[in-house]
Amino acid sequence: MARDLPPLVTSALQAFFASRRPLVEPIGPAYATAVARLEAFVLDGGKRVRPMFAWLGWAAAGGDPSGPDAEQMVTACAALELVQACALIHDDIIDNSATRRGRPTVHVGFAADHADNGWSGSPDRFGMAAGIITGDLALAWADDMFSGCGLPGPAVERARPVWAAMRTEVLGGQLLDIVAEASGDGRRGTAELINRFKTAAYTVERPLHLGAAIAGAEAPLIDDLRGFGAAIGVAFQLRDDLLGVFGDPGVTGKPSGDDLIEGKRTELLARALDHGDQHDPAAAGRLRALLGRELTTGEVDEARGILHQLGAVRAIEERIASLTDQALAILEPSSMAAGPKRQLQEMALSVTRRDH
Amino acid sequence: MARDLPPLVTSALQAFFASRRPLVEPIGPAYATAVARLEAFVLDGGKRVRPMFAWLGWAAAGGDPSGPDAEQMVTACAALELVQACALIHDDIIDNSATRRGRPTVHVGFAADHADNGWSGSPDRFGMAAGIITGDLALAWADDMFSGCGLPGPAVERARPVWAAMRTEVLGGQLLDIVAEASGDGRRGTAELINRFKTAAYTVERPLHLGAAIAGAEAPLIDDLRGFGAAIGVAFQLRDDLLGVFGDPGVTGKPSGDDLIEGKRTELLARALDHGDQHDPAAAGRLRALLGRELTTGEVDEARGILHQLGAVRAIEERIASLTDQALAILEPSSMAAGPKRQLQEMALSVTRRDH
Repeated sequence: MARDLPPLVTSALQAFFASRRPLVEPIGPAYATAVARLEAFVLDGGKRVRPMFAWLGWAAAGGDPSGPDAEQMVTACAALELVQACALIHDDIIDNSATRRGRPTVHVGFAADHADNGWSGSPDRFGMAAGIITGDLALAWADDMFSGCGLPGPAVERARPVWAAMRTEVLGGQLLDIVAEASGDGRRGTAELINRFKTAAYTVERPLHLGAAIAGAEAPLIDDLRGFGAAIGVAFQLRDDLLGVFGDPGVTGKPSGDDLIEGKRTELLARALDHGDQHDPAAAGRLRALLGRELTTGEVDEARGILHQLGAVRAIEERIASLTDQALAILEPSSMAAGPKRQLQEMALSVTRRDH
Repeated sequence: MARDLPPLVTSALQAFFASRRPLVEPIGPAYATAVARLEAFVLDGGKRVRPMFAWLGWAAAGGDPSGPDAEQMVTACAALELVQACALIHDDIIDNSATRRGRPTVHVGFAADHADNGWSGSPDRFGMAAGIITGDLALAWADDMFSGCGLPGPAVERARPVWAAMRTEVLGGQLLDIVAEASGDGRRGTAELINRFKTAAYTVERPLHLGAAIAGAEAPLIDDLRGFGAAIGVAFQLRDDLLGVFGDPGVTGKPSGDDLIEGKRTELLARALDHGDQHDPAAAGRLRALLGRELTTGEVDEARGILHQLGAVRAIEERIASLTDQALAILEPSSMAAGPKRQLQEMALSVTRRDH
């Protein structure tokens, strides 16, 4: 069932958007256009990682994929994609990113509408404004979709504190991230804290916890799932850090060396600079000079070479492997059923070994 | 009781922020600082108009201000202030507003922190980024506070579609507003649509509806409250439009002639330009030249004079009076108890005759 989940999530999102039309249409065509842009963004949406983990957390705790609650559970899982839509749309404004998944970002799409229509004022400012509002709508609708998923009241109530924690944590991680970037805080501890809250808790640990809470799991199983999720979640982000520098733009949909150009303070970078400052200050200095600005292909290659040379790539690969082992070791003796356990093992490997 | 509501709303908000601390603190001091800024913004927060209307809708439908649900109902009402915090914080970013209630806006406060700390990059971009995230947090917490208000499950479930409609409508009104401004759409019909969704539904009609739904009101009473609310809500916005041009900065906390400088497309302005285009094109042309740019005190006075001269001020005052009469006429024969009815009459007058 978990393998079949992404199309079901897409259908649930389509049904939700259809259900909003009677509310949206009286407000006029400009709003309907913005909502259609949000819908296209959400339906186009990637790997459905968060719904998959929520679903598996539920199944691991005894949720029945062919039982009467399964359809409503898909809806609850799909609501996570609307939280994610807000996070991505607002992040792209904050990072001034022009493309996502190989297409123009939402705010850039709105800016292009503005320019195409020959409207007055700045297209960029209009794009930012419309993007902020559209992201807000995604966040508000995430709550509406989750609250209206149709699962029994007590199940939703058990999940509420997890839902609350997840949103509070991801926003905290985002805030830490911009503060670290502005203050030039490149410490490994800071990068680890950001990974923990912006990605690991939000993408793996809390979705698993959410699903388990809906299924009424006991504390020991929740602890196992959260422990597994925290480790896999950090490994997932570390893989993302490697892809942000070494990924193939044709596969990732992001420009080559994107994280370098953005000057993103990743654990990969923190490790390289830490090591360089101690053992090879010239290399560290050169790497710093290659951050946060436009780079030629040659410069991207040079930065990649330095990351290898300073041992950071190997260290991150080792850490991914060790976190994955740690996660699998938590899973192995856990009390959950064999089917979900095997699927969690597969997910652990697929999200930490992916190429996009 | 309605008169005593604002301090109770403040206490409920303080209690909610206190309840979030165990979630926020592990994420680090930068997040705690941002949350403290949000808390200060929300506690400082104005007139508590939306909680007042929600409370009165509840009381009008038989909610008992000294009954066992009253405290939980205050919490549900107070959650509206967190929706409003998101709307204001994000609106101030969109409008590039430097002050609100006589103080620096949230994003400007963050930008000042950035500059004070001598961080790298643009303080303005940092302020925008931190403001977007803080507004998102307010919106997420609004839902958490509402869902966790402690009222009986069925009462919250009855209110959910209203809560959903209210957030969808206000975001739609905001989107229409920025599109109208960018496209130079100064038609009265557009200004009316914006007022209806951005203000009237959001500020009066839906809060009343929300309170009535929580109390389990029957359809005829809900219709009365919504009809009253739609009329008073539009009148509330028209009063705001007049204050935005003629208000005393010492009382409103906004710069003199703020709406002119912003080029805000209000009904007041639409009426003046409509009338001028037909009967006094020179005055209309001069008024257009005084919009959307910095103005001297003399120019603000000149624009005010033209708005009077074109009959727009009188027309808006008449419309406020007529909407208020219409609202009071709906209230008069309604089945609600005498106490809440009198308080709604008082609220109708106070929000349409206020000076700030």
